[in-house]
Amino acid sequence: MRLSRFFLPVLKQTPSEAQITSHRLMLRAGMIRQEAAGIYAWLPLGHRVLRKIEQIVREEMDRAGAVELLMPTLQLADLWRESGRYDAYGAEMLRITDRHEREMLYGPTNEEMITEIFRASVKSYKQLPLNLYHIQWKFRDEQRPRFGVMRGREFLMKDAYSFDLDEAAGRASYDRMFVAYLRLFARMGLKAVPMKAETGPIGGELSHEFIVLAQTGESAVFLDKRILDLPIPADDVDYRGDLTPVIDAWTHLYAATEDVHDATRYERDTAEVDRMTARGIEVGQVFFFGDKYSTPMKATVSGPDGAERPAQMGSYGVGVSRLVGAIIEASHDDAGIIWPDTVAPYGVGIINLRAGDATCDAACESAYAALTTVGKEPLLDDTDERPGGKFAAMDLIGLPWQLIIGPRGLAEGMVELKRRATGDRQTLSLDAALQVICG
Amino acid sequence: MRLSRFFLPVLKQTPSEAQITSHRLMLRAGMIRQEAAGIYAWLPLGHRVLRKIEQIVREEMDRAGAVELLMPTLQLADLWRESGRYDAYGAEMLRITDRHEREMLYGPTNEEMITEIFRASVKSYKQLPLNLYHIQWKFRDEQRPRFGVMRGREFLMKDAYSFDLDEAAGRASYDRMFVAYLRLFARMGLKAVPMKAETGPIGGELSHEFIVLAQTGESAVFLDKRILDLPIPADDVDYRGDLTPVIDAWTHLYAATEDVHDATRYERDTAEVDRMTARGIEVGQVFFFGDKYSTPMKATVSGPDGAERPAQMGSYGVGVSRLVGAIIEASHDDAGIIWPDTVAPYGVGIINLRAGDATCDAACESAYAALTTVGKEPLLDDTDERPGGKFAAMDLIGLPWQLIIGPRGLAEGMVELKRRATGDRQTLSLDAALQVICG
Repeated sequence: MRLSRFFLPVLKQTPSEAQITSHRLMLRAGMIRQEAAGIYAWLPLGHRVLRKIEQIVREEMDRAGAVELLMPTLQLADLWRESGRYDAYGAEMLRITDRHEREMLYGPTNEEMITEIFRASVKSYKQLPLNLYHIQWKFRDEQRPRFGVMRGREFLMKDAYSFDLDEAAGRASYDRMFVAYLRLFARMGLKAVPMKAETGPIGGELSHEFIVLAQTGESAVFLDKRILDLPIPADDVDYRGDLTPVIDAWTHLYAATEDVHDATRYERDTAEVDRMTARGIEVGQVFFFGDKYSTPMKATVSGPDGAERPAQMGSYGVGVSRLVGAIIEASHDDAGIIWPDTVAPYGVGIINLRAGDATCDAACESAYAALTTVGKEPLLDDTDERPGGKFAAMDLIGLPWQLIIGPRGLAEGMVELKRRATGDRQTLSLDAALQVICG
Repeated sequence: MRLSRFFLPVLKQTPSEAQITSHRLMLRAGMIRQEAAGIYAWLPLGHRVLRKIEQIVREEMDRAGAVELLMPTLQLADLWRESGRYDAYGAEMLRITDRHEREMLYGPTNEEMITEIFRASVKSYKQLPLNLYHIQWKFRDEQRPRFGVMRGREFLMKDAYSFDLDEAAGRASYDRMFVAYLRLFARMGLKAVPMKAETGPIGGELSHEFIVLAQTGESAVFLDKRILDLPIPADDVDYRGDLTPVIDAWTHLYAATEDVHDATRYERDTAEVDRMTARGIEVGQVFFFGDKYSTPMKATVSGPDGAERPAQMGSYGVGVSRLVGAIIEASHDDAGIIWPDTVAPYGVGIINLRAGDATCDAACESAYAALTTVGKEPLLDDTDERPGGKFAAMDLIGLPWQLIIGPRGLAEGMVELKRRATGDRQTLSLDAALQVICG
């Protein structure tokens, strides 16, 4: 993409309404624009990051055997009356009446609807295990929306739902999602720690939150720091095999948010040298809740013995839009965002220090073409802004590499290459720079 | 994908509520499930088609220089009061009140919001031309939702918005979208004909609808059939050059829907031998409306002379979810859907005629691996359904190729390959079949 044809409204001033780093940086970097309290437009740069995160989530869901579909944003109130949650959900549910006075709502989650879809066609254990997921906009009418996309009202969530014949198989489905979550957060460059969690309005007895460690996180967390050195399951992990050893390794060490922290147990189970207090951001949660929805909604399957029983269910959420903020909280410096390579909106920023100069333009176009061909998705700053402004904007938007091309360097056959994360700079030929970028 | 792990609830019976072919076939093929009047869940097979169509639209928008962002589904009523459309829009607008009694709505279109985004940061002609688009769910509270996804209430639309300094530049933006539309519908295997259209609630003087010809189309159309032989602009079309010759070629021959049909002009301008009456489905519409929104909403830019003037705007819609139905209306037979290759949910259906037989299983797995590797996205029917049921389901879901592998053929080193569109069958070795499929 050429910046002259892009839409990147960066702000020079720090917006006063932003209380936290990620919100401030997303506004300054022209990633989002608030359209109502807790409701944002994703401007082109922000939209690209959102899609990269979504795609990583999708790939890991698919790898774990989940099947993608897409449920609508609006739901019938009557569906939620079947589970008993319509009245229980409270003011966070956005209730809507259509032109025919039908009661509807903007879905905050989809346990009821997926159970309805399941019961309409799945009748036999032979069709199990089944895990269906979608990536769709949700709405929770927060009393005080704040912190930008971290606690918005309209937000993008991946939610998966597993169906099994018995509790053991349901636990195996839970374990698969647990492993998929370890992988997908790690692929985004995050240190995400699973922590035992309360289940709240989703229900059930078993739940883990995945908490990203970030200095500016929303809540305190207490953990055995050896968790941070555990290996992430590889991409050839056998999802049809027994995953309990992986789960055990990740859950037997202490890790808890302040909400459920048990100081006595922490001090008993964790040697002082291994204790670590940090701050964290919840980016995903997994639940196993058995027949909480399948029994009232009559989603039953027949087993090998012919007997009908309610499906054993779990649900598994990832806050896709929230992750954009969480990644920034975990990876930034005073100059701006530092995107991990896997979620960066563009792979390389090419800075043309003298747009309009034939030699500079030719070198930039050559680099642009080469990087485009190999899929590195360059963003070429071909505007007539001054160099200082270009450097600041490129640091702010945080692309992993900056390729700086100017007349003085070119006179000696040289360009400059900067790695955003470390600030390391090297002066080298354009060909050598392209080789470094392409690894 | 292996069918045993997929979720494909095909129906043997024809659902009684479906009045048109595409609705009936989408329900029977397990592509959608109705969750409320005019509101559908996209089951995995339908979701894949939706994504393929979306991706073609995206690629052609990007090629034409449009920049993708994503606006939220919900909007503030006050924004629509600025343009004067809030009261004018009528009962099709779904009006919503949040917990703080703020008046909101589920966006049926986004002229106001994009104008607000534009005016917040674009001040100079140097930032033009600009074309911003998104692909997002919309809601129109139809009085009588019907015909499945063809006239749903919650629907997926691509809407693009162009901004220019003067009318001539605005017309050039319109022409770029016109050409992009010719390309994107053709890539989906459709014959789409641009026809002069009325502008309705969007406004302006200049508009074309793109109408797909299908025997079961919703309205009668009258055209000079030589339009159908016009060449589609190639993928290296120069969007920075003058496109008026292309537009002229596509608009000087007569083509009109019954709404605006002028029989006198038709008979005067079109030789009898070239006249064609058909039925059509609207799948896209383009508008140029100048300053209809930019003047009341004060979206002005300064020109080279320093004078401020309202931006000249156009908007450009494609009915992404509607296209799934339109393609089926245009491409089916008595046995089911016939997907054009570019939008097929899977490229090849592999039918294992004796799942559990070691030789059949091995041959199917080998074909599956080979086709997966080359990106042909096979769907392997590895279930223990009887052959007749497998053939019927595969015809119904309409994948372009069927690779039929059974014990009798394998004993002679042969498999059967069927092209869904023509019904042509050939018996050949597995290697030869794979070569035919891979073209």
